[in-house]
Amino acid sequence: MTVNFNWVARMMGYLLLVLACSMLPALIVAAVCNESGALMSFLYTILPCFCLGIILIRSIRPSLTKIKSRDGFLIVSLCWLLFSIVGAVPFVLSGAIPRYVDAFFETCSGFSTTGSSILTDIESLPRSMLFWRSFTHWLGGMGIIVFVMALLPSIGTSGQLIASAETPGPTLEKVSARFSDTAKKLYLVYLLFTVMEVILLMLGDMSLYDALLHTFGTVGTGGLSSYNDSIAHFTNPYIHWVIFLFMTLCGINFNLYFVLVRRGIRRVLQDSELKLYLLLIGGAIALITVNLLASGTYENVSDGLRNASFQVSSIITTTGYVTADFDQWPTFSRMILLLLMLTGACSSSTGGGVKIVRILVSLKLVRRGISLKLHPNRVVTVTLNRHQVPQEVATNIANFVFFYIFVVFAGTVLIAFNNFDLMTTFSSVVACLGNIGPGFNLVGPSMNFSIFSDFSKVVLSLLMIAGRLELFTFFMLFSPHYWNSNKA
Amino acid sequence: MTVNFNWVARMMGYLLLVLACSMLPALIVAAVCNESGALMSFLYTILPCFCLGIILIRSIRPSLTKIKSRDGFLIVSLCWLLFSIVGAVPFVLSGAIPRYVDAFFETCSGFSTTGSSILTDIESLPRSMLFWRSFTHWLGGMGIIVFVMALLPSIGTSGQLIASAETPGPTLEKVSARFSDTAKKLYLVYLLFTVMEVILLMLGDMSLYDALLHTFGTVGTGGLSSYNDSIAHFTNPYIHWVIFLFMTLCGINFNLYFVLVRRGIRRVLQDSELKLYLLLIGGAIALITVNLLASGTYENVSDGLRNASFQVSSIITTTGYVTADFDQWPTFSRMILLLLMLTGACSSSTGGGVKIVRILVSLKLVRRGISLKLHPNRVVTVTLNRHQVPQEVATNIANFVFFYIFVVFAGTVLIAFNNFDLMTTFSSVVACLGNIGPGFNLVGPSMNFSIFSDFSKVVLSLLMIAGRLELFTFFMLFSPHYWNSNKA
Repeated sequence: MTVNFNWVARMMGYLLLVLACSMLPALIVAAVCNESGALMSFLYTILPCFCLGIILIRSIRPSLTKIKSRDGFLIVSLCWLLFSIVGAVPFVLSGAIPRYVDAFFETCSGFSTTGSSILTDIESLPRSMLFWRSFTHWLGGMGIIVFVMALLPSIGTSGQLIASAETPGPTLEKVSARFSDTAKKLYLVYLLFTVMEVILLMLGDMSLYDALLHTFGTVGTGGLSSYNDSIAHFTNPYIHWVIFLFMTLCGINFNLYFVLVRRGIRRVLQDSELKLYLLLIGGAIALITVNLLASGTYENVSDGLRNASFQVSSIITTTGYVTADFDQWPTFSRMILLLLMLTGACSSSTGGGVKIVRILVSLKLVRRGISLKLHPNRVVTVTLNRHQVPQEVATNIANFVFFYIFVVFAGTVLIAFNNFDLMTTFSSVVACLGNIGPGFNLVGPSMNFSIFSDFSKVVLSLLMIAGRLELFTFFMLFSPHYWNSNKA
Repeated sequence: MTVNFNWVARMMGYLLLVLACSMLPALIVAAVCNESGALMSFLYTILPCFCLGIILIRSIRPSLTKIKSRDGFLIVSLCWLLFSIVGAVPFVLSGAIPRYVDAFFETCSGFSTTGSSILTDIESLPRSMLFWRSFTHWLGGMGIIVFVMALLPSIGTSGQLIASAETPGPTLEKVSARFSDTAKKLYLVYLLFTVMEVILLMLGDMSLYDALLHTFGTVGTGGLSSYNDSIAHFTNPYIHWVIFLFMTLCGINFNLYFVLVRRGIRRVLQDSELKLYLLLIGGAIALITVNLLASGTYENVSDGLRNASFQVSSIITTTGYVTADFDQWPTFSRMILLLLMLTGACSSSTGGGVKIVRILVSLKLVRRGISLKLHPNRVVTVTLNRHQVPQEVATNIANFVFFYIFVVFAGTVLIAFNNFDLMTTFSSVVACLGNIGPGFNLVGPSMNFSIFSDFSKVVLSLLMIAGRLELFTFFMLFSPHYWNSNKA
């Protein structure tokens, strides 16, 4: 049983077509804004993608053998790499980001909804390029494969298999019997949030262009802005609260919105992960607000509360927008933000990180561990939402957390070659792997990632994709097990 | 089933007697060195301990009910707290460390074999006080309870139960059928190492006093020195290599020395934990040496190799002695040392930290996780030394690692109130919980812990004890489950 290369190549064809189409909005922006250089760069990227896509689909017969989960892992990893590699081309062709490695970093950061940037002067870029840069957030937010499934249900019954490789999570809930229906429904919610946020932002006197770009960055929990000072550019507190609201909403498990419609708010509020998520946000906001006011960082309560709320939601949902340079805050506030970087958002949201549900199960495993030490012969089970967590799921969660830690450590050792301070090194890896965006010190909210060597930029880019795919899907391809067909 | 307070109180009596006796060597040093103030301080501590101990043993009838593991946890935690609380008294009485909270920190650091210090001028202390400070390392290294068991086998068959609460580890091997015999044999190896190192150090022209103090710090993997600049005080490279050797030897599972005697070196080298330990040491030394030479930190290979070797062994064994200020080294070298702080030494050694065997099993769990993602229906087991690791042991290890992470995070939030930089905050917690000693930045090798608030000093002191007792034993006492007798 080897990898089904026929099928993978054909799928790549479809993906190239989707990628070509997804650049059309940016092309239109370039046309409207009279940015002829950018317009040609998009055309020169779209046309070869389109042709190669058609050729791949036409020339390769659909394979008759059923695909396996093994193929799903490969297709998903290749898909995200392909989108990032090709998506970077217009930046280079137009000269907006002259060096390819920088453009690749920026595109990975976009699709993976990380929001880290190597740009030192964002505002100097053509408007269409900034549009494309933010639009990658929107595409990546809900998952590219989910997007493809929603567009092309005909790709087949394999959808579930591939989608589970893209958004593995501890468990994959099925909202509909057919996965392509689930994908469509998820996108419906996603679109609804997008439209609502654009309207609300425009009511706050934002231009349509700015509203679109910052909505893409919010609902995708991305964090790339078209302004050098991110959301601090907008001085209207209303704007901050709107973005806070949608970041927080998009950090929630999207399946809960279906539960909300079908079974009401009470049922939604029983969800253990949601409860911990809201508790962490509420607790962190309270602690940081008090700390900011006590330390004199802000004079009045409303400023302190607004900035604390915004940064807490931005970090826990792994968005990365900023209204204030939190790296100048007292250590207590910074430490809480650092911890939130590691917890991440809810499973099946557009956010990244370890995910709240895994933290929750880990905490319950520790509590179970204490019980077992006291009563070694008692059977102590771990429950979640009143259901017992199967041993296998608990083990999977433990595996994931270990894997995450090891990847953070391996990453920091590689990034350490830049010889920056330890917190810069550590937080750059955490910020990229967790798809957050800003870190601390040299990669703090007012800084950027341009300081790193090319090698480090590639490492960080791959970490973003690995983090977005929750490690296993990506790193599995580097395992000899994967390629050794005799073992199957 | 409540806690067996009778038995606990009687046991406390024995412990007070042991503590009183363990101060006698320091008393003798005070007498020899004509330090009358110190002499009286020791006397004023020893006499009440002795009397109270006798009273407790005489006045409380031995309880007839069998003790449970529940009692073991309490007695061990109380024992370590008692030793630290009482052991700090002579420092305060003699005026060597005027403030009690500082003395408590220093004594916790001693018994837990951490080696962090709040002293800004170590060399100004009376020699007998420095002797006591280092002797606590020697007592704590092999475990106080193990020490008591070796001394007082008559305490009963409960020894194993209590000792397993002191050195929980993933598994507790029994070298002898009776635990008090095991305890004696462990102390024999420990004594042997002590004598050997003292002799070898004296051959390098060290005085008996210095040789004793630094041997206590080495074999207990403690790290307190009687000199402000730690081992860098001794310029003879021979001394550095001797200490390197004994630190490395004491970071190995002591049970393996019995295996060595009974079954030969080949059998010892098959031990998976030992192999990874040696691999980590060898690999880290090689990488750091190359990094130090390439960055020009050292001019010649022998200096680079010696300093790299010493610091690697000192950190991985959680000793904390230094021959060079590694916080001035390139980031790559510092990052490797930071990772070694988290791995720690082998299980059943005198070292602290997470322990290599847990890292090994965690790595194997990740590999198993990848296999399971590829072949969800296959049975994949985790093996260690060619034996299958039972699911329950693997789960325990996962619990421990999670617990460790949570305690690090909770600790950093509490320490963050000092408003030092993030790496100082983080590394101070890691250095204390892992019983290492020095951290980075403000708690780097050339700095000390005097900068912290009293609250932080108490938190860090308790973290040292919690870390030494591998978390569960200590934190269990804070669980409502522990005290709720109805639940039993």
